[in-house]
Order: sequence, then C-alpha cells, then structure tokens
Amino acid sequence: MKKQLNVGIIGYKFMGRAHSNAWIKAPLFFDLPAVPVLKAACGRQEESLKEFAKKWHWEETETDWKKLVSRPDIDIIDIALPQQLHYDVAIAAAKEGKHIFCEKPLSMNSRQAEEMLKVCEDNKVKHYLNHNYRRTPAVSYARKMIDDGKIGRIFHWRCAYQQDWIVDPEFPLTWQLRKETAQAGPQWDLNSHAVDLAHYLIGDIATVSALTAHFIKERPLADETTSGNLSATAKENEKGEVTVEDAALMMVTFKNGTIGSFEATRFATGRKNRLTFEIYGSKGSLAFDLERMNELQYFSNDDEAGQQGFRTILATEAVHPYASNWWPAGHIIGYEHSFVHAVADFIKAIEEDTAIKPDFADGLKIIQVLEAGIVSAETGSQVTL
Amino acid sequence: MKKQLNVGIIGYKFMGRAHSNAWIKAPLFFDLPAVPVLKAACGRQEESLKEFAKKWHWEETETDWKKLVSRPDIDIIDIALPQQLHYDVAIAAAKEGKHIFCEKPLSMNSRQAEEMLKVCEDNKVKHYLNHNYRRTPAVSYARKMIDDGKIGRIFHWRCAYQQDWIVDPEFPLTWQLRKETAQAGPQWDLNSHAVDLAHYLIGDIATVSALTAHFIKERPLADETTSGNLSATAKENEKGEVTVEDAALMMVTFKNGTIGSFEATRFATGRKNRLTFEIYGSKGSLAFDLERMNELQYFSNDDEAGQQGFRTILATEAVHPYASNWWPAGHIIGYEHSFVHAVADFIKAIEEDTAIKPDFADGLKIIQVLEAGIVSAETGSQVTL
Amino acid sequence: MKKQLNVGIIGYKFMGRAHSNAWIKAPLFFDLPAVPVLKAACGRQEESLKEFAKKWHWEETETDWKKLVSRPDIDIIDIALPQQLHYDVAIAAAKEGKHIFCEKPLSMNSRQAEEMLKVCEDNKVKHYLNHNYRRTPAVSYARKMIDDGKIGRIFHWRCAYQQDWIVDPEFPLTWQLRKETAQAGPQWDLNSHAVDLAHYLIGDIATVSALTAHFIKERPLADETTSGNLSATAKENEKGEVTVEDAALMMVTFKNGTIGSFEATRFATGRKNRLTFEIYGSKGSLAFDLERMNELQYFSNDDEAGQQGFRTILATEAVHPYASNWWPAGHIIGYEHSFVHAVADFIKAIEEDTAIKPDFADGLKIIQVLEAGIVSAETGSQVTL
Amino acid sequence: MKKQLNVGIIGYKFMGRAHSNAWIKAPLFFDLPAVPVLKAACGRQEESLKEFAKKWHWEETETDWKKLVSRPDIDIIDIALPQQLHYDVAIAAAKEGKHIFCEKPLSMNSRQAEEMLKVCEDNKVKHYLNHNYRRTPAVSYARKMIDDGKIGRIFHWRCAYQQDWIVDPEFPLTWQLRKETAQAGPQWDLNSHAVDLAHYLIGDIATVSALTAHFIKERPLADETTSGNLSATAKENEKGEVTVEDAALMMVTFKNGTIGSFEATRFATGRKNRLTFEIYGSKGSLAFDLERMNELQYFSNDDEAGQQGFRTILATEAVHPYASNWWPAGHIIGYEHSFVHAVADFIKAIEEDTAIKPDFADGLKIIQVLEAGIVSAETGSQVTL
Repeated sequence: MKKQLNVGIIGYKFMGRAHSNAWIKAPLFFDLPAVPVLKAACGRQEESLKEFAKKWHWEETETDWKKLVSRPDIDIIDIALPQQLHYDVAIAAAKEGKHIFCEKPLSMNSRQAEEMLKVCEDNKVKHYLNHNYRRTPAVSYARKMIDDGKIGRIFHWRCAYQQDWIVDPEFPLTWQLRKETAQAGPQWDLNSHAVDLAHYLIGDIATVSALTAHFIKERPLADETTSGNLSATAKENEKGEVTVEDAALMMVTFKNGTIGSFEATRFATGRKNRLTFEIYGSKGSLAFDLERMNELQYFSNDDEAGQQGFRTILATEAVHPYASNWWPAGHIIGYEHSFVHAVADFIKAIEEDTAIKPDFADGLKIIQVLEAGIVSAETGSQVTL
Repeated sequence: MKKQLNVGIIGYKFMGRAHSNAWIKAPLFFDLPAVPVLKAACGRQEESLKEFAKKWHWEETETDWKKLVSRPDIDIIDIALPQQLHYDVAIAAAKEGKHIFCEKPLSMNSRQAEEMLKVCEDNKVKHYLNHNYRRTPAVSYARKMIDDGKIGRIFHWRCAYQQDWIVDPEFPLTWQLRKETAQAGPQWDLNSHAVDLAHYLIGDIATVSALTAHFIKERPLADETTSGNLSATAKENEKGEVTVEDAALMMVTFKNGTIGSFEATRFATGRKNRLTFEIYGSKGSLAFDLERMNELQYFSNDDEAGQQGFRTILATEAVHPYASNWWPAGHIIGYEHSFVHAVADFIKAIEEDTAIKPDFADGLKIIQVLEAGIVSAETGSQVTL
Repeated sequence: MKKQLNVGIIGYKFMGRAHSNAWIKAPLFFDLPAVPVLKAACGRQEESLKEFAKKWHWEETETDWKKLVSRPDIDIIDIALPQQLHYDVAIAAAKEGKHIFCEKPLSMNSRQAEEMLKVCEDNKVKHYLNHNYRRTPAVSYARKMIDDGKIGRIFHWRCAYQQDWIVDPEFPLTWQLRKETAQAGPQWDLNSHAVDLAHYLIGDIATVSALTAHFIKERPLADETTSGNLSATAKENEKGEVTVEDAALMMVTFKNGTIGSFEATRFATGRKNRLTFEIYGSKGSLAFDLERMNELQYFSNDDEAGQQGFRTILATEAVHPYASNWWPAGHIIGYEHSFVHAVADFIKAIEEDTAIKPDFADGLKIIQVLEAGIVSAETGSQVTL
Repeated sequence: MKKQLNVGIIGYKFMGRAHSNAWIKAPLFFDLPAVPVLKAACGRQEESLKEFAKKWHWEETETDWKKLVSRPDIDIIDIALPQQLHYDVAIAAAKEGKHIFCEKPLSMNSRQAEEMLKVCEDNKVKHYLNHNYRRTPAVSYARKMIDDGKIGRIFHWRCAYQQDWIVDPEFPLTWQLRKETAQAGPQWDLNSHAVDLAHYLIGDIATVSALTAHFIKERPLADETTSGNLSATAKENEKGEVTVEDAALMMVTFKNGTIGSFEATRFATGRKNRLTFEIYGSKGSLAFDLERMNELQYFSNDDEAGQQGFRTILATEAVHPYASNWWPAGHIIGYEHSFVHAVADFIKAIEEDTAIKPDFADGLKIIQVLEAGIVSAETGSQVTL
C-alpha cells in the first residue's frame, strides 16, 4: 500500500476549489509515489467551511489555522489564501516541519519573502509556489525547446497579462484594490505570473523600468460578505480610494542580454484572462496565449526557405509534458489541469526528496522584480537589481 | 443526506477513464439532487480491471457483465464499451430496470437501435447516449442562440470531423478497422457525433447522398493485447483486409430546407480531433472547432454596417451553459468537462424524472442517417429517409 | 524597342476595370518580352464607355464588338463580359486570329466550350481563361509543394466558395440569377473557380454527385441600368422567378483516388468572398483562404515529433511565385495582383509561343464537371465523367 | 480638361517604385480634381535612373536634384530618399514653392524638422509626410470608430513593429545600420510609423521611457553598389561597427491619460513586417496587424452578454474608407494601396487648398518623441516632452 500524505488546506474560495480538485485528481491521472489525503480544511466561517469540506471530501475542518498547522498528523499545508496571509501561515507551517504548497504571489514584500524562504530552508521543508502556468504542456514544452537549442540566442521577451474585470467604475473596492490587503494591483497579481514565466523561460532580470496607471481613483465600498471574489457587490453611497495601480508596464533587461517587456492590466476590455508571450531568438521564435493554452506557436529558421511560418503546435500529444496522462492527441485540457500537474510534481518532490520549482527562492526573486518595478514607476528611473 | 445512485461501469479503457472521472467530478462542481456512487467496475481481464478500479475508486469489481447488470444494488449501468457490445448489455440492463448511460455510437445498426429503444421505453429507464459535444458550453450556447432567433432561417450546415491516426499504412488492423467489430469507419465513429450535432442544432435530415473512400486496403494485423486503444502495435508479417471505409462524405437536405455537408476522415494529416461546423442563416452565422472548443464564432447581420465580422466568443462566462460551475471568465475547460456535464444532467434527469437528450430515440435517428449514407455510397444515389 | 501587342477589351464594368488595371501594371512590375498597348475599349453605352476609356487610358473606343474583333491592328481580344456573351465573341476573335484573354466561366455549356476550343486550336491563337486565383503566390506555391512531393499521396480536397450578397430577399433579380443569362448560379460563378483550383492542384475529376438549393424562389425585378453589378437596385412591385440555384454542393472522386467536396453559395452570411480549400496528403497538408490570400497553411509530417503543426506561410518572400516582382517580404498584395500575373504570363506565352494555363481545354473540362453537377443534382445520382 | 500637376521624384529604389505606382494608379481609381503628371525622375546613377524612368513612364530624367527642384514646370517634389537627404531637398523645394510629398521618417533630428516645417509654412506649400499606414481602410476606420465614441475612454495603447531582416550576423552594415546615415535604427525607421499611428489614434504623448538593445555590435561592410536595399551583399573580411540600436522599446503616457508601449525591432525572427497595435477603452477595444492589413479586430462592450468577443472586420466594404474605390467586399488590397490613397488625398489637398495629415508638424512631433526615447534609453530616466 502506498504511503499517504495528509494535506491541510487553508482557504476555501476560488483557490480552495482549484487546489482541492487538484489533490483529488492527481492520483487518478498520475502515478504518484504517495497518495495525498484530504485531511482537513480550514477557514473562519464555520458554516460555509463545512459545506466546502463536505463537497470536496475534506475529512475534517478547523477554524483556527494555527491549530491546523500544529497538528502532528498533517504533512502538507496548502496555503490557498490571499497574499496578505501567506507570511504568517508559511512561517508557522515551516517551523512545524510541514511541506508547503503556497498560492501566488508569494508575499507582500521581499522582506517577508526572504524570511519565508529562510525558515523553510532551515526546517528543510519543501516549499512550492503555485505559478501554475509553467506546468501547462505548451509552456513546459516551450522550455524544453529552448533548452534543446531550438530558439538559439534569445533577443526578445514580449509579454502581456490582460484582464478586464474592473473596467466598470462601479465595480466595488474589493481587497484586491487596496494596498493594505493586496500590496499592489496587477503588478502583484498578474505580473508575478508573467515574471515567473520570464525567469523560467529566459533567465534572471538585471534591470527594470516601469510605468503604472491609476485610471479610476475611487470606487464604491464592497459589501464585506462578497469581497473575497471577483463578482463582488457594492455598498450604496459609500466610496473609498483605490490604493493600488490599475495597470503596470515594465521594460527589462535580462542578465543574458535579452530585452523584455511586460504589460499587466485589469483594463483590457474584452480580454478575460489573456496571458500572452512572444519569444524571438536567433534560430526560432515562440508565442503563447493562455486563452488558447493548448497551443504553442513556433517559427523555425531551419525550415526550408519559402516554407517557413509560425506553426500552431497543439500540445496534446504524448511527447508533450503531462499530456500523455490525459487524453489522446487533439483532446484539449483546461485551466485546472495545471494545478493537477503541480500537485503531482509536488508529491514526487516530497517522496523523492528533490527540488520543485518554482519555490520560495524563485518567489523572492519575483517579488524583488515587482518591487523594483514599483520603485521605478515612482521615480521614473531604471532600477538595477 | 442526499440520495445515492449506485453506478456500475462496464469497460475500463479510454472511455472507462473518461466516464469514471465524470462520475467523480460531477458532484464536486455541480449541485446534484443525488450522489453517484462508483459501486462496481466490470471487465474481462481481472488484473487490469482491479488496477483500474482501485485507481478510480470503484468499490468493487465484476468480471461478468451479466452479473453486474442483475445486481439489485445497481441503479445505473454505464456502458463504456465499443459499439459491438452495446446491444446485449443495454437490452439486459433495461430489462433489469437500470438507467443507462451509453457510450456512442449507439449500435451496429438501426434494427439493434430500435430494439434497444423499445426495451428501454417498455422498462421506463432513462437512456442517455453520450454524444458529449452537445454539452460543451460553446455548442450549448450555439443552440440557445438559434432558439433565440439570432441566426434566423438557416441555409447551410457545413461540418467536418477530421483525424489522422491511420495515415501511416503500417498502423495495424485494430477492431475499429473491421466491419464485424465496428460496423463502419468514420461514418460510425465520427459522423455519429457530427449528425448528432446537426440534429441538435438544425433539425431532422430528409435525404442523404454519400461517398466513401478506402485509401489503404490492407494492414498488418494488430497485436491483440493492444488493440483496444489508438496506439496499437502491429504483428509482423501478417496482414489483413481493412473492411470499413477510411473516409465518409455526405450531402444532406434537412426537413426544414437547410442543406448540409459532412466529412469524416481518419486521413486528415495534421488534424488530431478537429470537429468543425459552420452554420449560415438569414440573420447571422456560427462556427465552431472542437480543437478550440471554448470558442464560438458568431456573425450578426444586426451589427452596425462597417462593424460586422465574425466574433470569437470565449464561452467561459457565467452566462454560458455550464461555465459558472467551473472557473472565472477566461479560464478554459477541456475535453473531459463535457462528460461531467452529461453526468450532472443525467443524475438530474433520473431524480426529477425528466427527459435527457440525446437518448436512444436520437441515437436511432442518427444510425438511420448513417445507414442511409452507407447505402447511398454503395448505390451512388440519394437516399430519402 | 520592345514589340507592342495591341489589346482590345470588350466590357467595362467590374472586370473591365480589373483587366485594364492589369494591362497597365504588368509592364511596370514584370519584365515582359512585349508591351501591351491599351488600344481600344468596346461597349454598348457610348457615354459611359468613353468615360471608362479615358480614365483607363484606352486609346480608342468601339461600340460594335464585331468591328473591334476584325480590326487588323488588334492582337489580343480581352473578353471582360458575362459568360452569356463569351461564345460569340471568342469564336469570332479566334477566326480573326486574335489571341484571347477570356473572363471566366468559359461558356454557357460544354457544347459552346468545345467549339470555342476547336476554333482557337484551328486558328492557332492563344486562349487564356482567367481563373486568376491559380496565380496568387500562395496557390502557385501550393502547386509547387505538391509537385515537389511535400504533400505525398493526396487523400482529401475540401473546398468552399462562400459569399453572401443575395441573402436579403429584396436583392433584385439581376442577370446572375436568371438561367437564360447566367446558365446557373454559384455552380457556374463560384464552383468554376473552385473546380479550376482542384484540377490545378489535384487532377482530373472522375465522378460527381451534387446537391443544389433554391432558398428564395422569387425576387423583385432589377432596374436594368444597374443590373450589371452587385449593388443593383430593385424595381418596385414587380417580381420574377429566380431560375438558378442559390447554392451548389458537390462530392467528387478524382482519377487519382483523391476524394473531394465543394460548396458554393451566395447565402453564407458574413462571408464576402471566402474561397477556402484544405488538402490532406500522406506527407503533409495545405490550407488556403482567399480572404487571407497571402497566407498558405502547411503541415508537414516530417517535422520533429512534438513540433508539428500547421504553419502560416506568408507567401511574400522572393522564393514565392510572382512575389519578388512586388515588395519586400511581409508586404502583402491584394486581389487585383493575380490579374497582373495573368497578363504577364499571357504576354510571355504569346511572345515565346508557349502554352498558358488554364486555357479553353481546361475550361471545357471545368464546364463538364459543372454540368455533371447540375445533372446529378436533378437526378440524385452520381455522374461519371 | 482637368488641371495637371507635374511631379518630380527624387529617388528610384524601393520607395521610388512604390511612389511611382501610386502616382500612376491614383487617377485610375479615384476621382481627382487634378491629374498628376510623372514629369521627371531624379537620381545620381544615370543609367539605372533612365531604366527606372522608362519603366515607370517618367517623361524626363535629372541627375541633379537642385536643378529639378528649381524647374518652374514642376509643381510637386516627391522625396523618395533616405532620411539623411530629406532636409536639404525639402528646404530647397519649399523655397521654390513646390508642394512636398516626403517619405518618412521626416528628418535626422528635430532641429531639421523644425526648420523644414517653418520653411514650408513660410512658403505656403503643402507638406505631406508619408506615414502611409494611417491610410489603410482598417486603420482609417479605427480612427472613425474612436471619433464616434465606440471605444470610449482609452486606457491602453500596445504596439509592436517587428521585422527580422538583420538577425543573421553576416547581414552587412548597410546605411540603415550606421548613425551618420540613418540617425537611429528601428527607433527611427519603425517607431516613427508606430508613433504616427499613436498620435493619429490616441493623441499627443506626454512622457517617454525607453530601452534600446545592441545585439550585434559588428558586421561585414556592405558592398556599396547594393547597400540601398534590404538584400545587400557583404564584402569579405572587412567589418565595421553597428552604430544604431537593433531594437527600441518605449513606455509612454499620453496627455489624455492613456498609457502606451512600443516595441520596434529588426530581430523578431519570423516577423517580416508585423506592425500590430491593441487599443483598450471603456466601451470597446481594437486590434490591428499590418500582415493582415485588411482586417480590424473590434470588441464592443455593448454587445449582448454572452455574445461578446473580438470581431474580425474585413475592411473591404463600401462603408470603409477608400474601399469603395477598389473592389467589391471581400476582395482584399495590399501594401501599395495605402500609397495610392495618400496620393489621392494629397492631390485633393493641393487643389482644394486644405490641410493634409500627417504633415511636417506631425513629423516634428514624432521626431521629438523618438529623440526623447533615445535620451531616455541613454539616461535610464523618463523624459517629459
């Protein structure tokens, strides 16, 4: 009988669902060296927590995360919480020797991130940061192609992460729009993903120039009971200040000489969750769009003259990472599958005591880039990392 | 506590996995009036069956489907088998009063289909036929738009279902390529899906003209142990005759005056699982491609002059059928999700004693069209249904 | 000084403009062995003819085509007329020893076509039939790739030519919608182009099964003064019968074993001039769409596993046929350029006394296929050519 | 009889051809108030000049541009030269009272541009700067949609102009790669077009932050006889320093609060001439790609919920600017047509004595933005205009 790993999850909203689904599905589709057990779910509102736990087969519930973290039967703490709460939970969990599966962005600032990393390392726990888009077959395969030299020397990284959920000025002031709860706007939420992909595919960033925009300065206050999710409702007649940016642009140089750009916004009308990147190299090029996440565009300079062009690779073949665990070629997968891949790799990393990426060290580097961006946007000057 | 419905599944290959996943996931993402219980899995090879059952949480196994079908604790029989075996199992299950969730295509011929339908009706069991593509959000929404009059009078249905898995002449003679086990080639396997969509979106078919092709007449025999799946291996030095068509084209008239075409092939190099349709009407048009199944193309004559064009609707918004059960807008779903939708609707239909479509009556009509196509291809003449 | 070839054009509407432009531009962009001189334009309405001739630099005008055709100074007769008038003019021109540049479709029927071909051959004149889409760089290059063996044995031809200019039932009964003036509807107008491409890219057709539709049986009569063009205006209160089909579908077998389909319609709402084909072969596949006529889609089985996909070739590089005569790579050309290519090749064929394709022999074969389609649609039976 | 306007062109390479074609075609397709006469072509190499003039119907040739500029019979000077030569010619032509049709980018620096503008204004001549992409139907229509309020308040401008013609390190050091002849690299050549579109569609730019890259520092010297065009050949064994940037990125704020980004590069492998922009506003969004220049993407917030999506408008309908002068809907035009539109508008502006845009005032503003970008890239700091 396979070893079991008991998971305790904290948070039961959007990410609580996405993570729960992944813990359930990973052993169905992947050959794992250990079986994750959905042991306990933790949240503050007992009633809705119990409903969540029942639906998602969590065996028990806890309303005090400190208690959960200190339970000796728990092997893994899954932090499915907003960034504001990562630091306290991660530090405590690591000190208790729990492996950590942490939602992104890592933390509110690099000081927190440094400490989180240090405590994890000191306590020799696995620390996984859930920048899940790395683990789509198309993106993983892009990395493989780069590693295999298909792209050659990389000249350009061009990336945008575009959403449109706050274009309406009547959309309320949810926690994501206040600095004290979110630290920043799309620079944190979206560019953290984008910078992770850049680190993964291109390498470390050397300098950052940034520009932020604040299109709508004031919004109706949010009804507290709904403020955790994107379809929040507004209170009447009460307004508050938006204290994070609405959009964030960056131009960067990488240590390897590549130059890059990032655009993150919640004001791109018509783009729901479009994370797109283009990579141009001396031997070939790649392009990706999360809204068509099963596809990878590839141009090869090695193709015969006259027959060159961007190919649409449908990354659903057995040769594409993770794809053989799912369905035959041509049968696409969706957003949630990347979480399953993360869980599968995380379980393997624990059991085989190997590294899993991205981890808190990667997260720290991401936060440093994001912070440099905020500084650059404020000063109007390029920041060297 | 919610009522439970015990499911017995027969078959544990590709479709066994896809169905099992759906039984597990449906209650996680949908509010169901009853809970499906994965009671027993049935198959002939005990060892691999047990492995399958363990992985997918089936409580028990059976190696004799007749025994499973007659078990009083079973409420639902899930027929996840090749078409050759549907008739016997469905008849027996219906006679035992079991609700039936049946993989497509319905049967080997219309005589079987008629009897299957009659026995189900006589025994008042639910009979669902798993043409799952109806239940993608994009296709369901296409139907809604047609019902709402957005497309107006429909002139054209243009459809192709294209795969390429047997282009290599060394691909072996699996059961799908022999008439005695499969009845027909893509006319059965692929056009059954396509005709179902046509019935769903346009209406009944009145006449059929068809053309079939037999590109590769002989192939290596398949190694029996692998012949159930698409990545079969060949035996050396032994060849056998391909007794089904390699491609099947149809031109049809619908009873409502629409004209339509179908192309089904396993020889469309580069197309892995492309099911595409175009619908042209007096007020608007629609287009769909299964390899981008989250998208629906829509052209409206009502758009302002100069601003008309095909729109790419990303059918992931709360307003799109099924989508609100999954993730926020812009987060796509995949192939397997349509099975979950089918299970959710099936459970509801049982508990609320309502109809679920497509059923065996729909399946019978599909088989009649497919048979008419075979006759037309043989005679070179149009067949009136 | 280069030899001059005097051109006489008959017709000065849409095609008159497109041809005139081509005669003017060809010597600017191509190195021609002779210079076409725009000698005389011919039409029945003197005033508008003179205006046309002045604008397009035709030196003289004639209102009697017979006179033009018999002028000894004319080398080339350009028949820019509706199909109804091709026969008389072509026969007369050939008898006078003029080279013929003839708009498509060739004729009203195969009897006419046979005679036109015979008289041309007897009189040893060049006879070019203007199926101009062959001469787009993308389509020409597709042919080259097929000839080079890139596609291998071809299994499938899938083609549609879709327009939407008569979806509105109030669109008047122009000459294109009456059998006595047009012979047929899209079967003649659109499928003639499509069949030409099929002959060019695949080969000869062996059998035809067809289906036609008549969606709108009666329309307002057209104001005669406007009936020559697509934006015709209707007379009030007078209706007439539509005597050609609104849409025509064909399924064919080619002599080489390929199977194919055609759809031609004026009822594809949202498609303005979409001529699209897909070709699937044992080694690769191609796809084309006239509305993106600079692009050719190509899939190669020879690409490395995992890196296969349809490539978008932008056929604007020097290696692509005709492209080096225009602009640098990436600078696209448009609809009219294919006429320029035709003129350039036609001049060369005359001066070098070589064949130019498609010619009236090709046109005859096309008409035979189209006629077979009409017969098949009437009888419901496959027709063997 | 219509008035005639005598044109003298200076330069007979790529732009000489593109301009000549436009002077010839404009009166064929547009109703012009005056007729441009191709009077004299000017260049330094007499033999190739004469060949050019003959081919393109220029009546006479001149080898001294000063002489051409002072000829009293010349009404219009067409400057089809590299930017290095614009200043001298334009100043002289304006002083002689000639109207000026000037290729882009306007000049080597803003000091030149200011003086060019002043002398033109003082001498009351028309001064047109050929940022021709404004005059594609799709881009012109985008402007109309913005003016009509379809897009609402604009939040984002995202633009890239990508080519790949110098990725090969053996591509020689043509004049475009040396500061003394070109002033800058893609910042001048490509971003001048991009900034013109931004000015046209969004408005004036307030601040600029920029980043440039120098990927390949040294290249073979170019064979002088070929260095004027993109397919230059290299001298053996002699290398020189590349003194312009290889790529230039900018982040900007517009005076109206929009934020924007630009990427210009000659190192985007696979992109031949891709100029793409995205515009996101409170009511809708637009996107464009020059390689598909007949298409405009449009998203409207006003579309019914569930039916929203980016539409592909094929800007070939009579309602689209310039399109009715060409062919029926669905028949696309190409790169060169935008030059014809420019000529047509220029002739009208002269005859009706109205303004034509962009003019040298617009060009000056563009150069100021480009210069600010160079300064910002050097200092690492945002520059306020």
